[in-house]
Amino acid sequence: MSKNRIGEVTVIPLGGLGEIGKNMMVVEANDEILVIDAGVKFPEDELYGVDLVIPDISYLIRNKDRVKGIVLTHGHEDHIGALPYVLKELNVPVYGTKLTLGLLSGKLKSHNMLGNTYLRHVYPGHSVKVSSFKVEFIRVNHSIADSCALAIHTPAGPLVYASDFKFDQTPIDGKMADIHKLADLGSKGVLALFSDSTNVEREGFTMSEKEVGKTIDESFSESDKKLFIASFASNIHRIQQVFDAAVKYGRKVALSGRSMVNNVHIALDLGYLQVPEGLLIDLKDVSSLPEDKVVLLMTGSQGERMAALTRMARGDHHQISVENGDTIVVSATAIPGNARAVGRTINQLFKRGANVIYEALSGVHVSGHASQEELKLMLNLTKPKYFFPVHGEYRHLHLHAKLAQRVGIPKENIFIPDLGDKITLTPEKGYQSGSVESGRVLIDGLGVGDVGSVVLRDRKLLSENGVLMVVVTINKKGKVIAGPDIISRGFVYIRESGDLINEATRQVECALSECEEHNITEWSVLKSKIRSSLDDFLYSRTRRRPMILPIIMEV
Amino acid sequence: MSKNRIGEVTVIPLGGLGEIGKNMMVVEANDEILVIDAGVKFPEDELYGVDLVIPDISYLIRNKDRVKGIVLTHGHEDHIGALPYVLKELNVPVYGTKLTLGLLSGKLKSHNMLGNTYLRHVYPGHSVKVSSFKVEFIRVNHSIADSCALAIHTPAGPLVYASDFKFDQTPIDGKMADIHKLADLGSKGVLALFSDSTNVEREGFTMSEKEVGKTIDESFSESDKKLFIASFASNIHRIQQVFDAAVKYGRKVALSGRSMVNNVHIALDLGYLQVPEGLLIDLKDVSSLPEDKVVLLMTGSQGERMAALTRMARGDHHQISVENGDTIVVSATAIPGNARAVGRTINQLFKRGANVIYEALSGVHVSGHASQEELKLMLNLTKPKYFFPVHGEYRHLHLHAKLAQRVGIPKENIFIPDLGDKITLTPEKGYQSGSVESGRVLIDGLGVGDVGSVVLRDRKLLSENGVLMVVVTINKKGKVIAGPDIISRGFVYIRESGDLINEATRQVECALSECEEHNITEWSVLKSKIRSSLDDFLYSRTRRRPMILPIIMEV
Repeated sequence: MSKNRIGEVTVIPLGGLGEIGKNMMVVEANDEILVIDAGVKFPEDELYGVDLVIPDISYLIRNKDRVKGIVLTHGHEDHIGALPYVLKELNVPVYGTKLTLGLLSGKLKSHNMLGNTYLRHVYPGHSVKVSSFKVEFIRVNHSIADSCALAIHTPAGPLVYASDFKFDQTPIDGKMADIHKLADLGSKGVLALFSDSTNVEREGFTMSEKEVGKTIDESFSESDKKLFIASFASNIHRIQQVFDAAVKYGRKVALSGRSMVNNVHIALDLGYLQVPEGLLIDLKDVSSLPEDKVVLLMTGSQGERMAALTRMARGDHHQISVENGDTIVVSATAIPGNARAVGRTINQLFKRGANVIYEALSGVHVSGHASQEELKLMLNLTKPKYFFPVHGEYRHLHLHAKLAQRVGIPKENIFIPDLGDKITLTPEKGYQSGSVESGRVLIDGLGVGDVGSVVLRDRKLLSENGVLMVVVTINKKGKVIAGPDIISRGFVYIRESGDLINEATRQVECALSECEEHNITEWSVLKSKIRSSLDDFLYSRTRRRPMILPIIMEV
Repeated sequence: MSKNRIGEVTVIPLGGLGEIGKNMMVVEANDEILVIDAGVKFPEDELYGVDLVIPDISYLIRNKDRVKGIVLTHGHEDHIGALPYVLKELNVPVYGTKLTLGLLSGKLKSHNMLGNTYLRHVYPGHSVKVSSFKVEFIRVNHSIADSCALAIHTPAGPLVYASDFKFDQTPIDGKMADIHKLADLGSKGVLALFSDSTNVEREGFTMSEKEVGKTIDESFSESDKKLFIASFASNIHRIQQVFDAAVKYGRKVALSGRSMVNNVHIALDLGYLQVPEGLLIDLKDVSSLPEDKVVLLMTGSQGERMAALTRMARGDHHQISVENGDTIVVSATAIPGNARAVGRTINQLFKRGANVIYEALSGVHVSGHASQEELKLMLNLTKPKYFFPVHGEYRHLHLHAKLAQRVGIPKENIFIPDLGDKITLTPEKGYQSGSVESGRVLIDGLGVGDVGSVVLRDRKLLSENGVLMVVVTINKKGKVIAGPDIISRGFVYIRESGDLINEATRQVECALSECEEHNITEWSVLKSKIRSSLDDFLYSRTRRRPMILPIIMEV
């Protein structure tokens, strides 16, 4: 392990490059390690049964003693969600703004880890010393309050880690991104910028959160029955706008959905939401109020199966029902992969006679991520020597690199490392200096990393054509004394397929008696004979290939 | 079965309402049945392992003798794809335009059904008599050539079945939708209009296919290496535009992907594509030409796993490789559910150094479906007494109904039936007159309808947490003489979970000895004891619930 030389810094992405989610960046200087963010990623369809995906942190575990702390940019799951798993391995101090740590605390509490974690909150505009690293927290706008870019001062110069951001010229809380601080860093000289690539495909500027307020206001003014608003539970500014409209139009607010209730209470406790006394009511009291005196603020904007709005759309919520003439605002965009589920929810709501206001029709949502002109502005403000597009699939990173070239960053100073690549930077040069273990760790239930490619391959096979077990009992001499019995699940509907299974049984019997004739008693051979006799037969009859599991019992 | 009275007609949707795909509409008059379209739907994710979904046609089978024919509006899979299955049950004449029947013939050939099917082609602008129904074929524009709306003359008046359409004012082949015929029908009096709801969420007019030509032209003019264009294989006009640009820029065209090759040859044979001698070359001859003298036209615009472009992106195509500086045009939009697969393909292509032109960035695709202004135009041209929004999920149908009200159709004259609902229309009134069996039939391999909810539920369970089998051999007295043996697949990675399985085995042994103590020998009880002992144990240890299958063998 070579000590970093004075005048250089090494960065290693462990997540968030070449993918959306599980953001994590490692910064090394003076032989010390600082980690930025520790996010989760929600599993794609091919990760059957997997609950969460987190970064592989083997490298950090191997270098435990050198890890001095974790700094957080904001409180979204893809930036803080892996901390309960990471902190189990690395018990280091965690730094973030008040709301970010508030949301993290809830998470740690549910893992029984709150007591043993050192959390230190930092105000935007302030800085903190993490061992030899000075880290400045710089306010940016995003779809969650208290989001920050970070300036990390290293022996080679400052890194600006912009993380997720946009420039909202009319933010809800009046707190604009700190363009002056970014400009100041830019004039003094930034070594490297790391910037959000999520919306690089979009031209122009991202609309202000205030625009959504207009649609929310209209939905209040036009509704004379129950009003439902579904949104991301972490979008505190959106929630504030709903509260403001509720006050204006004389409706009480009831919250529904666990994460909505939790986040609103955390934000209230920490002073991030302004609510007059008596505005919030309990969900069970909704029915005692006139229909036009209440608004329900809830989860389910992504069509999640168990979320409040989804259950109400299905008619499956024990307290609230959606009725003819009610208005529902789905104040969110469908994340890729959720489009069908969201569509299904909207269909069901229309079918119940509700008036549904959703993204395809009107301005009910704005993105929290910078569009092309804002990305250029960030580059021009900070004028970095080196540029790393981060937070995006490869096409986003590639397009962001092209965009950076257009504002004057030389191609050779732009890096798109793979996860695990070590990039060493000095004021003179930047180069790949090696690579470390990296990748993904799958979380399924309590298991961390015990679901691998073999298990996933089996789940995929099982999901497509089911499983068929063949059980045979043989005696010590290798003679069949019971079976073969065939049991299948997820293959064909048995009651209608008795003939098929009977014939399959005869195929196995033939295979077994052939083995007997040739004195074959080795189990592995018997099993492979059973498997091949069935595989061909079933495929020719059904064009399906279920997983075939021969089981031999000896008595 | 009551004979339809003179002066009335009954319509029954069997597919395409409340869903995208498997379009099929039944028209009954004079005791005779006419069927419009017979499409498939591609299975959603929750239909594990299912290949295709077709309409339930039990009603038509029960009334076989009254079914006089099937008329087709155009050659897309969601309008003709179910015919091989439907014609096996109902061998009736099929009517359509030349290209539609050309595409259908290829399909029937691969099912060995071409010889026994009566196919009759009808030119747009002409009409055909199907028993007592006079059916006029009226040209419309769509993303496949030779698309028609149908005017079906019934004792109660004409129905206009607009099917999928748009009004392209500058179509590639110069053949505009027959607005004069639609206007003429409108002035004489249309009983009911059935119109495409796919794009009802979009304002304005859908762009002309000619707009895509500009982007295609640019991609040719700016490319100096290999050029790849991926598109829907059925979009003959798009393909013609590629051919035209290839001629202009002096490139040869090579086709890749089975459906692209098939469709181009069918369209060429039938005169729907104009190609100068020698323009088309074989894929294997591509390497013998200079890179800037060839364009590859291919499938894979949806990121389909085995399609040409997808394999090239993976570096997994035996003839063609994508290299640094090549240009790839993905001339399509990602159908919901395919967005991630398309994104993955684009990422891989960028990573190979290619310049990828895709939808998020530029005008590489226009829709084949009418936007709001065109939908209003169709309503105003035909001035129907009754209106049926068709082809859409419920939200689309609902919004289309609202739109029709805005152009003057009274609410009570607009119908959004469920599948199977019979709606009877006379010039005086329209009402629901009953309902028939309807729904979906799942095709998996050779099986038609043998995968039902039980099989799907099992596949879902298996996909999430795998399967765990417990095998025990007992003797006639109920004493365990071999096992319990536990085998699992898709649950945990066994090598790392030996302890878990050992402990699970002990759990089963305990359960079995408890049964023995209490003289429990009934198999169903034994099995349920095994299952419950394991279920709780495994959940507490892993938070997963694999499918548990106890198997008892008696010797």
